[in-house]
Amino acid sequence: MKTEHHAVLEPLRQLKKEGFSITELNPESDGLILEETLLNALRDDTFLISIMLANNEIGVIQPIEKIFEICKKNNIKLHTDAAQCLGYLPKKNFDSLANMITLSSHKIYGPKGVGLLIVDEDIQLTPLVYGGGQEFGYRSGTIPLPLIVGFSKAIELSIKNQVINSIQLASHRDALMNGLLKKNSKILINGSIINRLPQNLNLTIPDVNGSKLHKYIKHQIVCSSGSACSNGKVSHVLTSIGRSFQEAESSVRLSVGLSTTTEEIEKSIDVLTNTIKKLTN
Amino acid sequence: MKTEHHAVLEPLRQLKKEGFSITELNPESDGLILEETLLNALRDDTFLISIMLANNEIGVIQPIEKIFEICKKNNIKLHTDAAQCLGYLPKKNFDSLANMITLSSHKIYGPKGVGLLIVDEDIQLTPLVYGGGQEFGYRSGTIPLPLIVGFSKAIELSIKNQVINSIQLASHRDALMNGLLKKNSKILINGSIINRLPQNLNLTIPDVNGSKLHKYIKHQIVCSSGSACSNGKVSHVLTSIGRSFQEAESSVRLSVGLSTTTEEIEKSIDVLTNTIKKLTN
Repeated sequence: MKTEHHAVLEPLRQLKKEGFSITELNPESDGLILEETLLNALRDDTFLISIMLANNEIGVIQPIEKIFEICKKNNIKLHTDAAQCLGYLPKKNFDSLANMITLSSHKIYGPKGVGLLIVDEDIQLTPLVYGGGQEFGYRSGTIPLPLIVGFSKAIELSIKNQVINSIQLASHRDALMNGLLKKNSKILINGSIINRLPQNLNLTIPDVNGSKLHKYIKHQIVCSSGSACSNGKVSHVLTSIGRSFQEAESSVRLSVGLSTTTEEIEKSIDVLTNTIKKLTN
Repeated sequence: MKTEHHAVLEPLRQLKKEGFSITELNPESDGLILEETLLNALRDDTFLISIMLANNEIGVIQPIEKIFEICKKNNIKLHTDAAQCLGYLPKKNFDSLANMITLSSHKIYGPKGVGLLIVDEDIQLTPLVYGGGQEFGYRSGTIPLPLIVGFSKAIELSIKNQVINSIQLASHRDALMNGLLKKNSKILINGSIINRLPQNLNLTIPDVNGSKLHKYIKHQIVCSSGSACSNGKVSHVLTSIGRSFQEAESSVRLSVGLSTTTEEIEKSIDVLTNTIKKLTN
């Protein structure tokens, strides 16, 4: 998909340079992909599909079960980038979502710099790093024990508290969204609000430059005008779901966390509303 | 060199499969490479030489300055695996040893799972991981901040204490070596004892199987019958310096650490001597 993270897009673009044929699918305006779009793009020689489970900027959750069914029927392997999802999707059984699943530690309060790739046993990948043969030969090198221990504990806690955490996050996110919409009628929500991660909110605020807004509020609210991994560039996710270049520049991503309080939500609504007023006058 | 770590040998062997022509050089029986050997192996199209600064099993230190001179004269880039060396070679200025230098954190009491590649600015490498462009685009992915902070502190401390640490380690290592040789006249030392890391000792004990010895003493002395990265296999380093298969199997690597005490050295000499007697009777 065109809205994939650079961690997926860039390796695929590199494969394209090496002679592979890559199709980047277009999502609908809500950020979701239609089964039809996927079916129409299939070719006889398609052997791999990579669709992210949830988007890192707009939080929308793709219908991965349906996509996996299509893949199985057509004898295609499915990879899903589920980095954003662990701990936030109570009903998901990660093992059965795809043939290859990538997960990330720091998205669930684990240490930065470690992730997880779950691979079906019948899939043989090319090693990423050659050497002593650690990590089943896929990535040689002394393993980062402190990070693995931290990540393991974070997985344990996030699974244990999945339901309660998701309810709490969605409740705060919805309060933030509703409060902002009530006071700022021009605000547009980016991405499906139904099929969405509980912690994510992404807004387009017409006539307000996102970077400028960010500068005004950054000492009061920690937010981002795009992805942390591509700061300073206009979001390829927002332009892919049909926002204009200018609208994409007028957007902010607001995430709530497990430590976010009701008071902080209320303060954020006030700070954002006041700053928007200031910037549009 | 044939005695390189698998972290160097395996990527080169993979390049060989992809069509590159690779020459693996033979060291002398003391583990050191002769300038002559290197000069004789040079071809018109040689563009990269990789020689480890110090060996991970037998601790011998290669004449890297002379090798770098040869490289410069012949317009060849030099990489050196200096993973074993940081903090143990007081006189070395790592920046000027080669065009590319790899260092490792856990060899200097830093956290496991992080390393360092120093690259001359005029060298452009192929990225190892594509994505968000972290680490100058060479290895994308959220950086492991806790490991980097720990490694940085370990570097600071190891540089600060280089001289005193090296003297202390060499003193303990030499006491261990001399004590063992005095009581076990058949023991052979593997690798040059002059050009050698201060903490490393590698012995061949004729007629004593290394793995068996290891089993007997492992609850009293932490030692290894080979490299931790290729446990269970016969050392390619020892066979490369001319030890027979059987001799290589009759070998142990003993390393002293910064916490090693004089009492532990004395105890180790006794435990080893007694176990050797038991196994040869």
